[in-house]
Amino acid sequence: MPRYPVHATKIKLAQHIAAPGNTKLSTVEHVCVKFASLIGATSIAKFESLTMKQVVISGTGLYTPPFSISNEELVTCFNAYAEKFNTDNADAIAAGEVTALDLSSVAFIEKASGIKSRYVMEKEGILDPARMVSRIPERGDDELSLQAEMAVAAAHDALARAGRTPADIDMVLVACSNMQRAYPAMAVEVQDALGIDGYGFDMNVACSSATFGIQQAVAAVQSGQARAVLVLNPEITSGHLNWRDRDSHFIFGDACTAIVVEAKDTAVSQHQFEIIGTELKTRFSNAIRNNFGFLNRFDESGVGKADKLFRQQGRKVFKEVCPMAAEMIKATLAKAGVEVAQVSRYWLHQANLNMNLLIARLILGRDAEANEAPVILDTYANTSSAGSIIAFHKYQDDMAAGATGVICSFGAGYSIGCVIVRKV
Amino acid sequence: MPRYPVHATKIKLAQHIAAPGNTKLSTVEHVCVKFASLIGATSIAKFESLTMKQVVISGTGLYTPPFSISNEELVTCFNAYAEKFNTDNADAIAAGEVTALDLSSVAFIEKASGIKSRYVMEKEGILDPARMVSRIPERGDDELSLQAEMAVAAAHDALARAGRTPADIDMVLVACSNMQRAYPAMAVEVQDALGIDGYGFDMNVACSSATFGIQQAVAAVQSGQARAVLVLNPEITSGHLNWRDRDSHFIFGDACTAIVVEAKDTAVSQHQFEIIGTELKTRFSNAIRNNFGFLNRFDESGVGKADKLFRQQGRKVFKEVCPMAAEMIKATLAKAGVEVAQVSRYWLHQANLNMNLLIARLILGRDAEANEAPVILDTYANTSSAGSIIAFHKYQDDMAAGATGVICSFGAGYSIGCVIVRKV
Repeated sequence: MPRYPVHATKIKLAQHIAAPGNTKLSTVEHVCVKFASLIGATSIAKFESLTMKQVVISGTGLYTPPFSISNEELVTCFNAYAEKFNTDNADAIAAGEVTALDLSSVAFIEKASGIKSRYVMEKEGILDPARMVSRIPERGDDELSLQAEMAVAAAHDALARAGRTPADIDMVLVACSNMQRAYPAMAVEVQDALGIDGYGFDMNVACSSATFGIQQAVAAVQSGQARAVLVLNPEITSGHLNWRDRDSHFIFGDACTAIVVEAKDTAVSQHQFEIIGTELKTRFSNAIRNNFGFLNRFDESGVGKADKLFRQQGRKVFKEVCPMAAEMIKATLAKAGVEVAQVSRYWLHQANLNMNLLIARLILGRDAEANEAPVILDTYANTSSAGSIIAFHKYQDDMAAGATGVICSFGAGYSIGCVIVRKV
Repeated sequence: MPRYPVHATKIKLAQHIAAPGNTKLSTVEHVCVKFASLIGATSIAKFESLTMKQVVISGTGLYTPPFSISNEELVTCFNAYAEKFNTDNADAIAAGEVTALDLSSVAFIEKASGIKSRYVMEKEGILDPARMVSRIPERGDDELSLQAEMAVAAAHDALARAGRTPADIDMVLVACSNMQRAYPAMAVEVQDALGIDGYGFDMNVACSSATFGIQQAVAAVQSGQARAVLVLNPEITSGHLNWRDRDSHFIFGDACTAIVVEAKDTAVSQHQFEIIGTELKTRFSNAIRNNFGFLNRFDESGVGKADKLFRQQGRKVFKEVCPMAAEMIKATLAKAGVEVAQVSRYWLHQANLNMNLLIARLILGRDAEANEAPVILDTYANTSSAGSIIAFHKYQDDMAAGATGVICSFGAGYSIGCVIVRKV
């Protein structure tokens, strides 16, 4: 079958509209022009509005925060906090009224997660046992917000890689697991800082925000609503992590990724991946939850409680999400007509090394080679929605034209997003 | 020109695939089937994946909270608060160290806004001069969230009107100006409560969340990602309003709207409006802003300050947004090939009566008749993204087939969304 000839048809159609009868048409073009005429496509704009475009990821970008915290640093701080707590509460602990805090350890963290370090926007506050949260002064309304600043940096990186400028972008999505404020939307501030016309909005479906954002971008480009879309994932996970919770104090890191999505027939990038399939799935679970929000003021008794930060039932998540993600990847490949054997790379959500090893085994029926499922969580930790995109960004340049890969996110919601891409 | 024959083509194509040569095709159908074949549409699924669907709003729903607060009640509370403040600070006020609070009045509110009352989820707390914020106890994680509860109620209303059940929906958007929590996404909880398969996510672009949500739904249906989409706008504006600010204490109300968006060729509703054009626009402004968010803990000196609630520079917003909205409506109509004279109804964002009167004048060159731009803000106040949809929901049943209307939202961001619809 010939390739869907949207671009060629457009050119012929333009000639045909300008001078009907004078344009020599091949049989294929003749049918296309006739179809265009039948559906009322008397102009290029109308034809485009009735037909769908093919879509590529034409560039990705990454902003890595300036500070890295090693497991050793983190454990030193946590244990100082825990030991002081246990000393301060020695009598109550002895009386059985208070539970002593267990100490953390580097070995425990690495075994549980595969994480060795993580980046953060500010580390002194996190590593102060008396504080254990970043210390970043508020900015005035006229200054660029912290979260927008990360997004702008990643966006510039992605635009350069895509061979695009802000003038080429029509839509900006800030898609991440927590927004610095409700309004004005972060996306609109970023759009303004980049000098982009058009529109933007914020979206959130936790760890799957990037893949869900890609699909919104795909639909916008397919349907002609936008020529190109910037999807931005500024994750300041350090802001919703409970650094005093031994079970989770090590899991998160900050980062921002950026993705340019645009029409294939006009893309100019040297780094194009055609999007050949996307599937999204959500299934409600409270196993990962954070109750912080604007309604907390309705009941001040709950303000500052531990449920106003990230909490998870780690083992439950592991057990439930791994098979869901593996099944989703297999189903998405099947729907796109791609065999597992044809996939050369899986850019998986970067939460936990053991999850990724298991998911790869469930798909492949064997352990993945290192280059089949690249790992970045060792140095970045779990950067929520940015994780799979960091892996995609860092591990794609060796892929040959025609090579196929799968971006897959999974996490709170539960939410799972699969994007199948093929190197152009 | 004949109508774009997607549905007819699908049927013929199915017959043609089943028994090539046996199917009698009209000339139109012949070209369509040939085009389908040329683009590689050897199956219905493939044909659908390459062509765009027409889209309708097939039903809307409304949840109105149980409590209404009149201007009189609100002013009584505000003035009791202000008088106590002035008495308590009499010496400092006399010394010029503290500014006395002005009293509010029913006449001031009605003249400034056109608002006479507003609905809220809880009123005792708001009307207690010593509290002035709703008092609603936190719910356990296993109970349906307050915001989800509103969305579920509105969703049932919209589904019934659309002649649909949860089994018909593939995508759920919670699109509103503030989310009760970051994760799991509100949309996923609502999806679960309704028993919907598929996926959902949260999106926010303040007052334009509903119209932007409609466009995301349109793109999802056009491109075949979803058969039908539920767009939900659970606005608990009482949660981010500063009830102690005389300039804005009267402006907001709570409500939730729901919109079913689906493919025209399979819709069964008696209340269909075809979507014939959508345009979105954002332009950054700090004139409406709220700095509450998860990063506030990075700088505890700012926690609880007035900038952590809704603030606006009302006159600036009025002056800047009215012409933007009017221009946007005119441009969207022009792009869709619709004359202003053909539009029989404008369902405008419901923030302020004077804004709507001015916008209508800027479009029409004269004052709007009452039924041309229906008003619901007198009893609902500004319900953020829900406002224009409440107007659309309440003022559509008298419209004849072929009648054209415009839904237009405008607000924080700035964000403006236009949706042109035509009664089927």
